[in-house]
Amino acid sequence: MTKKIPHRLYLTEDQMPTQWYNLRADMNEKPDPMLNPATGKPVIPEDLYPVFCKKLAHQELDDTTRYIDIPEEILEMYKNYRPSPLCRAYNLEKALETPAKIYYKFEGNNTSGSHKLNSAIAQAYYAKEQGLTGLTTETGAGQWGTALAESCCYFGIPLTVYMVKASYEQKPFRKSIMETFGATVIASPSNTTEAGRKILASNPNTSGSLGCAISEAVEKAVTTEGYKYVLGSVLNQVLLHQSIVGLESEKAMEMLGEYPDVVIGCAGGGSNLGGLIAPFMRDKITGKANPRLIAVEPASCPSLTRGKYVYDYCDTGRITPMAKMYTLGCTFAPSPIHAGGLRYHGMAPILSKLYHEGYMEAVSVEQTKVFEAATFFAKYESILPAPESAHAIRTAIDEALKCKETGEEKTILFGLTGTGFFDMTAYSSFHEGTMIDHIPTDEELQKGFDGLPKIPGIQE
Amino acid sequence: MTKKIPHRLYLTEDQMPTQWYNLRADMNEKPDPMLNPATGKPVIPEDLYPVFCKKLAHQELDDTTRYIDIPEEILEMYKNYRPSPLCRAYNLEKALETPAKIYYKFEGNNTSGSHKLNSAIAQAYYAKEQGLTGLTTETGAGQWGTALAESCCYFGIPLTVYMVKASYEQKPFRKSIMETFGATVIASPSNTTEAGRKILASNPNTSGSLGCAISEAVEKAVTTEGYKYVLGSVLNQVLLHQSIVGLESEKAMEMLGEYPDVVIGCAGGGSNLGGLIAPFMRDKITGKANPRLIAVEPASCPSLTRGKYVYDYCDTGRITPMAKMYTLGCTFAPSPIHAGGLRYHGMAPILSKLYHEGYMEAVSVEQTKVFEAATFFAKYESILPAPESAHAIRTAIDEALKCKETGEEKTILFGLTGTGFFDMTAYSSFHEGTMIDHIPTDEELQKGFDGLPKIPGIQE
Repeated sequence: MTKKIPHRLYLTEDQMPTQWYNLRADMNEKPDPMLNPATGKPVIPEDLYPVFCKKLAHQELDDTTRYIDIPEEILEMYKNYRPSPLCRAYNLEKALETPAKIYYKFEGNNTSGSHKLNSAIAQAYYAKEQGLTGLTTETGAGQWGTALAESCCYFGIPLTVYMVKASYEQKPFRKSIMETFGATVIASPSNTTEAGRKILASNPNTSGSLGCAISEAVEKAVTTEGYKYVLGSVLNQVLLHQSIVGLESEKAMEMLGEYPDVVIGCAGGGSNLGGLIAPFMRDKITGKANPRLIAVEPASCPSLTRGKYVYDYCDTGRITPMAKMYTLGCTFAPSPIHAGGLRYHGMAPILSKLYHEGYMEAVSVEQTKVFEAATFFAKYESILPAPESAHAIRTAIDEALKCKETGEEKTILFGLTGTGFFDMTAYSSFHEGTMIDHIPTDEELQKGFDGLPKIPGIQE
Repeated sequence: MTKKIPHRLYLTEDQMPTQWYNLRADMNEKPDPMLNPATGKPVIPEDLYPVFCKKLAHQELDDTTRYIDIPEEILEMYKNYRPSPLCRAYNLEKALETPAKIYYKFEGNNTSGSHKLNSAIAQAYYAKEQGLTGLTTETGAGQWGTALAESCCYFGIPLTVYMVKASYEQKPFRKSIMETFGATVIASPSNTTEAGRKILASNPNTSGSLGCAISEAVEKAVTTEGYKYVLGSVLNQVLLHQSIVGLESEKAMEMLGEYPDVVIGCAGGGSNLGGLIAPFMRDKITGKANPRLIAVEPASCPSLTRGKYVYDYCDTGRITPMAKMYTLGCTFAPSPIHAGGLRYHGMAPILSKLYHEGYMEAVSVEQTKVFEAATFFAKYESILPAPESAHAIRTAIDEALKCKETGEEKTILFGLTGTGFFDMTAYSSFHEGTMIDHIPTDEELQKGFDGLPKIPGIQE
């Protein structure tokens, strides 16, 4: 007898994971260490204390502890919106006439509108625990900023958000929602920081970038008493917190007697992808299973598919530590596409390492194709996806259509990271036929590579 | 041993109701019949055929069938977002320091953003089944329009939406989302209909009203071949479809060993309130239990608390049947408050009758107090409520604070009908301190009453 699989499966509160999973502990080769830009030496926790909370600095550098307990206060706020549903896309499958089984883990059922809340809560909690008086951060699409504003509001911590100017202008209501949760929101680049003023001086009409907003937020944090900086992607600690997405997916699929042949996630800095694939990557590394793991990035910002695997700064202003990662160069300024959350020059070091070693695939897709998939999906599954999430939908649909060709009944799992309620400008532009695809030329990419750091003895 | 109650309880798909509950069947005195405006006689199904689908016309007039099967195709789309969670507001309770137990049924976890989808799906399905070529409707806040656009997209039926001008201007992205789902959206009053032109001629600067948008949508439907009109509130059929909200709430509470002492819902036309309270009202009528049932309406549009229980038209243009209901008069034009979904001059006949007979209470609240409650709730429960829903939150908080005074451990259940992602203009106005409360004077109300219809032998 076939098991009856519901449209949406919610784990119970009791079934929610109480530990995060640290994928690094199972990696045969660890990601290369971050380097202190002043000394060129691997960073130690103390190097990170000026910027990060102590607990988070340790999580950042811990590559041996396999499971880390989630503090009770964090679990309490998680329960406001978790466990999130594992959805079976029956209606989409029918519309595609595919023999494939399509599942998605939906992280949009919370007010921040995305998976970003999973790490925001953790970071706000540790800041509170350490007695900080404030936090700074950057936001691209606004999802991370909203998530952190919500978390800081909950724990009672003041927050300043540097919002990439392109998004700030496209999404006025994202600003309002962060302000509703008590945050101060500043368009980046701004003249409130040295880094911002420098970027504005050299390029007054820039629409900003995540890398540049990071520089401003870090500067603001280190120059303000009692403040620290928090980041919603790229970092090891963020992927750690996001592992709850993968752990819940794994458990839910197990309950259904399923295991994915293909796992697909959109990839900007890697927060969602790293979290979603964590347990499946573990299985792949340990030889327990052999799923295909696919990163989907925008054609306009193709760090994995067209970038270099080298040491680079995490920010445009070059004040952060350097990380070994796939990067387009920290000075690369991607076009102002609508998936603002994917406009980052680099890729999480953990994912970069795994991709470099062949554990993961990557594809890049153009935004008009992405919105085509998004509106198709919305019609049948009754969820309006965020443009970022729709990158994964695009590839999931493509994989399902391949199954239609070959007749294979593959099990596809993708991450539906969030909702598109604050992206209606983008949807209108697609609807009206004014949306444009941006694909950087080799010359444009070369300019970014020219700005890569030189590190004596390591990277000449 | 106390039962451990989770923060969010999701029924399983198997536990979802497969029948709607028709409260009229259990009412000792039925609501007074709708009257045909041409003849002054009670309407029969055939009178409604020019406007409504046949099946819906029958549901509208059926006051004896207790349970009605939900068609399989409707259940299939329901499963995209139902069952919706019953939430225990642990964090809100703690913040209020109340001994009360606060529950809410959250209907916002779907792309339309509210409970409106429950009836939209049903009405779009029956239209499809009858072979119609298109539908028209009106929308106030935009939630009903979005829900119907989603449903019509799913079933493949063209849709024209008349959107109250106040909302159209305040919420540009509501328009975009309806268009993304393929709908045509027109600001009302418009010059596309006779009714609209008439209203514009007498009041060119009007910000519109639900009553006026209804006139336009009905006119458009009856003058377009193969089209019918659908309505998201007030009607008996809508309350019938919305009973799924109450049925799921009842079942979930039963599983937790709970029963509400107080049930609270916001009330515009009555769609949410009528659905939420249906099974609890049944218990009250049949003497099985005696919960308090409270309607919360805006002080600016107080149909229950300051209106008259008389026959009135459902629309401003006086082309619909007349219903016996609490009304401010079909010409009453409420101020453009932010809870656009509550700007209706009347109240569902079913609820009006029950209120008149003393089965239900009603309170009215001012919008600044409502947004105060909304932001407080968002902080602790991590959900940004729709302004409409926040009316219920205001009263739930007030009831919980009374419990704090008296020490009573009451069980409160309220309906959280939707999310406020498209209401950021309103939140900004509250945040910036520019929000104004509108309370109509007795003179203003009298003007509305002066426009009530005179019906020989029934209402002079």
